[in-house]
Amino acid sequence: MPKKERKRLQVVISDEQDALLTRTAYELSSPERLISKSEVVRLAIEKIARELGEGAHMDEYRAILESDDISDES
Amino acid sequence: MPKKERKRLQVVISDEQDALLTRTAYELSSPERLISKSEVVRLAIEKIARELGEGAHMDEYRAILESDDISDES
Repeated sequence: MPKKERKRLQVVISDEQDALLTRTAYELSSPERLISKSEVVRLAIEKIARELGEGAHMDEYRAILESDDISDES
Repeated sequence: MPKKERKRLQVVISDEQDALLTRTAYELSSPERLISKSEVVRLAIEKIARELGEGAHMDEYRAILESDDISDES
């Protein structure tokens, strides 16, 4: 990632989400290229923005957001 | 999110990714329910793990990971 124009993002996640990140990083890694959890987060941000930009999955996303493990409010 | 079993995740993101997060949070928000950027990140982590769990989009994800804005290595 280019050195300029960076921001530090802090997010509290559950142990289970941390495990999902680790597993996803492993699944995307190969013997030639290890993928970090930070790379997975940046990829996930780009991916969800693209899908919403296409108007896809809005209702599905809103439903997932209501789960305890994602909402700020529980 | 339940109080127990939390981890603090720190990720460096680009200004553009920060703007994508803000826009996505806005698009998922409604007059009844404001969505935070943290909620979007947790949703995005769950979503990408689900898709990969189904074996979907692996090649697409690997290609996106090579872009400067996501890779750790540039």
